[in-house]
Amino acid sequence: TRRPVAVDAADPRFPWQERPAGETGVVWRHRGNPVIGRNPMPEVQGIYNSAVVPFGDGYAGVFRTEKHTRFPLLHAGWSEDGLDWQIEPQPIRFTNRTPDPSEYAYDPRVVRIEDCYYLTWCGGHNGPTISMARTTDFRSFEQMDNAFLPFNRNGVLFPRKIGGKYFMLSRPSDNGHTPFGDIYVSQSPDLVHWGKHELVMRKGGDTVGQWWQRTKIGAGPIPIETPEGWLMIYHGVIDTCNGFVYSMGAAILDLEQPWRVLYRTNQHLLTPEAGYETTGHVPNVVFPCAALHDAPTGRLAIYYGAADTCTCLSYAYVNDLIDFTKNHSAVF
Amino acid sequence: TRRPVAVDAADPRFPWQERPAGETGVVWRHRGNPVIGRNPMPEVQGIYNSAVVPFGDGYAGVFRTEKHTRFPLLHAGWSEDGLDWQIEPQPIRFTNRTPDPSEYAYDPRVVRIEDCYYLTWCGGHNGPTISMARTTDFRSFEQMDNAFLPFNRNGVLFPRKIGGKYFMLSRPSDNGHTPFGDIYVSQSPDLVHWGKHELVMRKGGDTVGQWWQRTKIGAGPIPIETPEGWLMIYHGVIDTCNGFVYSMGAAILDLEQPWRVLYRTNQHLLTPEAGYETTGHVPNVVFPCAALHDAPTGRLAIYYGAADTCTCLSYAYVNDLIDFTKNHSAVF
Amino acid sequence: TRRPVAVDAADPRFPWQERPAGETGVVWRHRGNPVIGRNPMPEVQGIYNSAVVPFGDGYAGVFRTEKHTRFPLLHAGWSEDGLDWQIEPQPIRFTNRTPDPSEYAYDPRVVRIEDCYYLTWCGGHNGPTISMARTTDFRSFEQMDNAFLPFNRNGVLFPRKIGGKYFMLSRPSDNGHTPFGDIYVSQSPDLVHWGKHELVMRKGGDTVGQWWQRTKIGAGPIPIETPEGWLMIYHGVIDTCNGFVYSMGAAILDLEQPWRVLYRTNQHLLTPEAGYETTGHVPNVVFPCAALHDAPTGRLAIYYGAADTCTCLSYAYVNDLIDFTKNHSAVF
Amino acid sequence: TRRPVAVDAADPRFPWQERPAGETGVVWRHRGNPVIGRNPMPEVQGIYNSAVVPFGDGYAGVFRTEKHTRFPLLHAGWSEDGLDWQIEPQPIRFTNRTPDPSEYAYDPRVVRIEDCYYLTWCGGHNGPTISMARTTDFRSFEQMDNAFLPFNRNGVLFPRKIGGKYFMLSRPSDNGHTPFGDIYVSQSPDLVHWGKHELVMRKGGDTVGQWWQRTKIGAGPIPIETPEGWLMIYHGVIDTCNGFVYSMGAAILDLEQPWRVLYRTNQHLLTPEAGYETTGHVPNVVFPCAALHDAPTGRLAIYYGAADTCTCLSYAYVNDLIDFTKNHSAVF
Amino acid sequence: TRRPVAVDAADPRFPWQERPAGETGVVWRHRGNPVIGRNPMPEVQGIYNSAVVPFGDGYAGVFRTEKHTRFPLLHAGWSEDGLDWQIEPQPIRFTNRTPDPSEYAYDPRVVRIEDCYYLTWCGGHNGPTISMARTTDFRSFEQMDNAFLPFNRNGVLFPRKIGGKYFMLSRPSDNGHTPFGDIYVSQSPDLVHWGKHELVMRKGGDTVGQWWQRTKIGAGPIPIETPEGWLMIYHGVIDTCNGFVYSMGAAILDLEQPWRVLYRTNQHLLTPEAGYETTGHVPNVVFPCAALHDAPTGRLAIYYGAADTCTCLSYAYVNDLIDFTKNHSAVF
Amino acid sequence: TRRPVAVDAADPRFPWQERPAGETGVVWRHRGNPVIGRNPMPEVQGIYNSAVVPFGDGYAGVFRTEKHTRFPLLHAGWSEDGLDWQIEPQPIRFTNRTPDPSEYAYDPRVVRIEDCYYLTWCGGHNGPTISMARTTDFRSFEQMDNAFLPFNRNGVLFPRKIGGKYFMLSRPSDNGHTPFGDIYVSQSPDLVHWGKHELVMRKGGDTVGQWWQRTKIGAGPIPIETPEGWLMIYHGVIDTCNGFVYSMGAAILDLEQPWRVLYRTNQHLLTPEAGYETTGHVPNVVFPCAALHDAPTGRLAIYYGAADTCTCLSYAYVNDLIDFTKNHSAVF
Repeated sequence: TRRPVAVDAADPRFPWQERPAGETGVVWRHRGNPVIGRNPMPEVQGIYNSAVVPFGDGYAGVFRTEKHTRFPLLHAGWSEDGLDWQIEPQPIRFTNRTPDPSEYAYDPRVVRIEDCYYLTWCGGHNGPTISMARTTDFRSFEQMDNAFLPFNRNGVLFPRKIGGKYFMLSRPSDNGHTPFGDIYVSQSPDLVHWGKHELVMRKGGDTVGQWWQRTKIGAGPIPIETPEGWLMIYHGVIDTCNGFVYSMGAAILDLEQPWRVLYRTNQHLLTPEAGYETTGHVPNVVFPCAALHDAPTGRLAIYYGAADTCTCLSYAYVNDLIDFTKNHSAVF
Repeated sequence: TRRPVAVDAADPRFPWQERPAGETGVVWRHRGNPVIGRNPMPEVQGIYNSAVVPFGDGYAGVFRTEKHTRFPLLHAGWSEDGLDWQIEPQPIRFTNRTPDPSEYAYDPRVVRIEDCYYLTWCGGHNGPTISMARTTDFRSFEQMDNAFLPFNRNGVLFPRKIGGKYFMLSRPSDNGHTPFGDIYVSQSPDLVHWGKHELVMRKGGDTVGQWWQRTKIGAGPIPIETPEGWLMIYHGVIDTCNGFVYSMGAAILDLEQPWRVLYRTNQHLLTPEAGYETTGHVPNVVFPCAALHDAPTGRLAIYYGAADTCTCLSYAYVNDLIDFTKNHSAVF
Repeated sequence: TRRPVAVDAADPRFPWQERPAGETGVVWRHRGNPVIGRNPMPEVQGIYNSAVVPFGDGYAGVFRTEKHTRFPLLHAGWSEDGLDWQIEPQPIRFTNRTPDPSEYAYDPRVVRIEDCYYLTWCGGHNGPTISMARTTDFRSFEQMDNAFLPFNRNGVLFPRKIGGKYFMLSRPSDNGHTPFGDIYVSQSPDLVHWGKHELVMRKGGDTVGQWWQRTKIGAGPIPIETPEGWLMIYHGVIDTCNGFVYSMGAAILDLEQPWRVLYRTNQHLLTPEAGYETTGHVPNVVFPCAALHDAPTGRLAIYYGAADTCTCLSYAYVNDLIDFTKNHSAVF
Repeated sequence: TRRPVAVDAADPRFPWQERPAGETGVVWRHRGNPVIGRNPMPEVQGIYNSAVVPFGDGYAGVFRTEKHTRFPLLHAGWSEDGLDWQIEPQPIRFTNRTPDPSEYAYDPRVVRIEDCYYLTWCGGHNGPTISMARTTDFRSFEQMDNAFLPFNRNGVLFPRKIGGKYFMLSRPSDNGHTPFGDIYVSQSPDLVHWGKHELVMRKGGDTVGQWWQRTKIGAGPIPIETPEGWLMIYHGVIDTCNGFVYSMGAAILDLEQPWRVLYRTNQHLLTPEAGYETTGHVPNVVFPCAALHDAPTGRLAIYYGAADTCTCLSYAYVNDLIDFTKNHSAVF
Repeated sequence: TRRPVAVDAADPRFPWQERPAGETGVVWRHRGNPVIGRNPMPEVQGIYNSAVVPFGDGYAGVFRTEKHTRFPLLHAGWSEDGLDWQIEPQPIRFTNRTPDPSEYAYDPRVVRIEDCYYLTWCGGHNGPTISMARTTDFRSFEQMDNAFLPFNRNGVLFPRKIGGKYFMLSRPSDNGHTPFGDIYVSQSPDLVHWGKHELVMRKGGDTVGQWWQRTKIGAGPIPIETPEGWLMIYHGVIDTCNGFVYSMGAAILDLEQPWRVLYRTNQHLLTPEAGYETTGHVPNVVFPCAALHDAPTGRLAIYYGAADTCTCLSYAYVNDLIDFTKNHSAVF
Repeated sequence: TRRPVAVDAADPRFPWQERPAGETGVVWRHRGNPVIGRNPMPEVQGIYNSAVVPFGDGYAGVFRTEKHTRFPLLHAGWSEDGLDWQIEPQPIRFTNRTPDPSEYAYDPRVVRIEDCYYLTWCGGHNGPTISMARTTDFRSFEQMDNAFLPFNRNGVLFPRKIGGKYFMLSRPSDNGHTPFGDIYVSQSPDLVHWGKHELVMRKGGDTVGQWWQRTKIGAGPIPIETPEGWLMIYHGVIDTCNGFVYSMGAAILDLEQPWRVLYRTNQHLLTPEAGYETTGHVPNVVFPCAALHDAPTGRLAIYYGAADTCTCLSYAYVNDLIDFTKNHSAVF
């Protein structure tokens, strides 16, 4: 039976491929991408922008699963190796919540804090906002109160309390496709009430020779604690005359004051170039949502949605990523 | 010589491929798509969003033919098998109409009513509206009066009078790319004067767990009469942050009061996934415009434009499609 | 009791003031404007953009009456002199129509054709369009079918059949505040089915030294038959950086082919200058909707809405107006 | 010296004028409006959208004071009679906050909760949001943490805890002029952390015969506790082709569950009609921000900003206002 | 006969009123405003945003004259006292230019450089740009080449060469109502070819506690040479939810390097408050276009257009204005 | 060592492929496209919209080189055959210019005039405009003054003086993605001051049966002098509901009065159809920026950017291109 215990160090089941010869990027793609492609199961046209965590002997996840209605809902899923996923055919039915067919749910993140797993996602309650739920077994999910007023997206919890408080990153937005957006952090004593909102970092970069994140930014996977600070992988967006392009970047935040940005990549780490990234229902999207960290080896498996169509994987070494971020940093 | 008689039942020349093994959709693609690809004839870069009907021993059609001017005009075409088409190199020159180089013509539909074939299309006369013409031989075409005031698109005639009146579906719009749109039906005693306009169905669906048709909808092929009602195949559109996505849906309308929707698919039947649908001059478009129905066998060949670039074919069994529509219906 | 007979010639009750000394305009304002001011009756904040006709010994009218809901509905009204109006406190309840609280009604016109009075107005039925009704006594009103599909405003009937057909002017629009708009004319054998839509005239004028009607135009009062043609008073709109400005203009249409414009004023006849025109709920609006014509004397009393707030009156002599239109004409 | 004690019942200094003869509205204007007109003091061009409370022997207030920079800042002010105000020439300098010249402050509300006065306003911290401060003497103001993430406006505290929690109304918005907006309520144990956000009521009304509040709504004065529930005066906005019009409305909220709307006026109570309301820097604005309640007599003095230019006063009897709201209610 | 000689010092005909008692502003209004009101002459509805210069024994000017076409054209005019103006009934017909009825002309400036008067204005040649002409007698005007490519407005020449070059301020814009705009300066050896374009100053001010000029700015009268630098009076614009508000500001530019801003008012000097400024065809506009300077006395008469409807006058002492600008300056 | 001399006639190193059998277009693609593909060198993700010229024994070029910052800068490059390019890893550092990290540089053109090479590009100096520089060796580049005020793009110099003046084509635009744009030509005596701006040709074509260039147009390679006139290759853009499509066209301008258009293709010559054109960071872009002309043979190698991602090559014979342009011309 599955038990909510920590994955072993140097886990042989950790999803991983070494950097290919000739590849110079600090982040590189899984060769078998997408790991969850188009029409992965009956009546489902796409699974993407989803979250995974170590769980029991393997991995569990919460997946943005798009049926032929194109209405986004969350499904639980399981994998032994992080690559081959069994997704539940039915969406998660949250306890403590009256079902409402108009409530969409997309772009989940999952974090383990102490002995519980918390989900955050963009939920629709008269406008998109950050919804929350908790589970210990990925079978029964209890919905909690929404963290924030609308309009908000990309809510990402820190994996532990800081100074006795819970912390959550988010990106206030509008009720449409949001052509702007900065990252904030908020604090809570109880995961219900939130305050002490601080600006973490802004979109922009054109005064320091950057365009890739000039339109909006949003936090991605759960921040990873390192001796250098919290490693926050995020997405940055540029608007072209033919639409947005979403790329991956990274920042390092102060461990105790996570609204302080110590370093921030002045360039993207991964941008849409593969066919499954440049073509699909929303072309030119690389959208990181989750990362697995094999602490003993420093290996990092970063999951990202591609083109709002499929789920992909990329890899990095945490130390390399930290070094790169420090050496190619512009904080503004 | 070609004669305007009905095609035989169980016609061996009916374009058809059985559902591939493993395919679960109620509508499936022709394996040789596109049937009319890029640059199909000299000086023509694309033929798409076009209409075909049984005619003589084979099929005739009216095609949106885009030369290197990218100006849309209609060309007649002929085929013995519905797959291999000979398109006239010159656009249709309508009698009863002074030529005007500023009058575009696109997205035609063709219907046989009694002994005559009627064309409807989006014509430009100080704004897009529903233009009409008639022919008996697909060689000489007489233009009729425009049915409606601007701004309108996707005018689709019913194949017979209902209660002594002609009926036409249409989608009132604006003079641009129209980020909204519902389907109406109008009546006429003479195909010249139109009135008794009724709303048939609205875009939307977000309160019943759908997003695929939330932006606009428009009728596609000529409605098919069945014992259950008029089978109306249509397109539904969602706006993403990187553009519209056009998918195929279906509804069943009351035989005598066709503004009454009996059933309507709560999900799309076909959505852009093939390369020729996701990439082209207008990416992510599946736009059904015509259907051939082999009544004895219930086979249905649905023609659709892909990516405003080429002409494709898909198949279904009418009975399956009706069952699916009834079993996956949300009327709102 | 009131009888629907024609008003006598040279009616002493005709609302009239001679042109003030020093006034040079071909159209001049009533000195007691507004004739129906703010808060004219309990619970009503404004009456404007309304229509009047001779009726019985005096005048009857249909009024856009705005209560504190600001929801526009139509009320009947009565006057002996065209200046002092008794407005019914309750909105018109149309027979032959299921009441629907979401159906607004605004900007009415009224015309007598043969022995019946016809109302046209902008009605909301899943989008603004031209609604119609008829009455013989201004007490009982029977709703007819909408003339056109949405989106349309400013539907104006001609006061007699032309070539055996009814004719209606209208301005196709969009579902918002419509930053464009031209005048069309349509024909009907029965006031139910409409066709043979023709463009009458376009907004514009910047190539012939005009800006006052560059954004949109719409027909106003019922066209007045004269030996020179149909005298059509209309509104022209310019968009400034701080909003639209609505002014009054005139055109003369061919008697038999009313889509042919013989003359069209190259300048406005009246533009917002009085305080009740420049200030109000929609500043800078002069919106003519009705005209009384005293044929024996050639006197013309033109009713117009001011600033979407109150009802005003202006005067002209028909012959002067025709001469002015011919002498200051630019047809484009 | 001023002492923060409650004003006496039936205070002779209460600002008041009885309803004028002939006035039928449940709310009527002060005859000497504006009480603070244009250029009320040196270097100040306007004071509006401001808040007052009983304080000591008279009244204190926090005022949106616009100097010739047109940059909005808050100034304290004092009055013995609620009509004649002495405004401090310098803006409030908040303790516990590093001054930042880019931080604007506008549309304040003030509430007394227990022994302290709390200010809420729209503050700019990388986007408009609800800022907060407290004072006991209106001389020293301590800034507190912002309540919410951007983008938010019209934050209004309830005057007492409900079920042990503080409650605040607010209207999430965007970073511009916000063409939409609904009222929410949030809860806090400590005035720092906020959660349990509930939708209170939406803009709209077109399906129940209203247009005056179809574009956006926002809470105004501090809710007034009555046996019928919380009396919430608010503003509703309609967008015309020439801009927004802001009017005053009212609702009654459940005493214990203030997100439950018991009654809500289906029409406005006051709309821009006076010259000082229809003309000014933002024409056609009536914006209520504060109300004084003389409990023994039921008299209510409602302060509102007019045309973003001056400060005005209107009156009502609470019981009349409650009766009117109940009798003219549409909850949607 | 009129001779183009300089006006005498301390000219008794200089238009002037001393600052009224109680007036604290550095700029104050003429008590008889508007000096050219609505309908100042037959067929003309407004004259505004116009330019005047000393000429002969009195003053000459070039006026934006709006007939009932609302098409802007330039008319010459004459005055003995700068208050009472005789405007030519016919627009200026430029020599050296083929007449084109689509070429509008508005917002002129006039400057004397050496023995010639130069006009600059916003002319329409496939987009608004800076047109130029010259005259010595205000009777014959020779059109010169346009200075810049579209899109540009508010071109203002300096009154003498600087370092051997002519200098012109301008505000690049777009082809609509331009919701942005900064002031640049360009140089020319010959008034035909222009280059060495430098940014002078930007719109904005929100980081230094200003909003009045946050949307766009544009130069107004011809810069006035003073020992402190070039005194440039300009307009600054804020966008409110109900439109733009245009106010007057001032800056002092370096005498030799006029792209260097030495001082710039951190607040407006005059903002729409009078009825003729807040109401009209474009409400809330104060638009300075010309200034007369009585050097011996330091008196300054600043002409400005009000509400795109009429011509007004305001006064200041140059020294006061310079002191004010220096003492209330924020350069950004 | 490299010397700035003209390339030999009939140069065997000229990049060239004959028209493939079956290819009917007057312009055809290089079979090895893209010649500079994705990630062509370390830290560079794309090189496109770039300019090449004969230089020394081979070719030199200036390249829009996009690193992972996505900030566009110019790099010099070298090639012996026009196909295999060595791009400098560092961007060009211009002398005579203070470096500013906010100044982007993109879409360069290069022309040799007499003994010097001139660069023009879209540079950002408080808005996009036409920046210029000169070099003789492609190693040292001296920046010159910007030619025009913002907002401008696609500045293209003629390769020799005409009537003693330098001439430059450009396309005035706005500060965003510019949904409009026409081509102008300006003159200069010294490459510093520019004037005598003339409209060359407008976007459009819908009245002459064209849509491909209806949204905007911009000059491409340096015009090629022929006996028929200047051959100007340009891009034309259509806006679809899913974005812009950029195609290639051609015009022939009068040799002495290059603002006179003698012929202009009524259709495109090349439109996005290859995968590298339809997919990439900006899908559906064919953007010609440079052409090599082998005068003795009439061969033309046209370089174009594809999808804002890579650099491609196409071929034509000049005589064929001129004949085609003359035979398929519509000047409007």
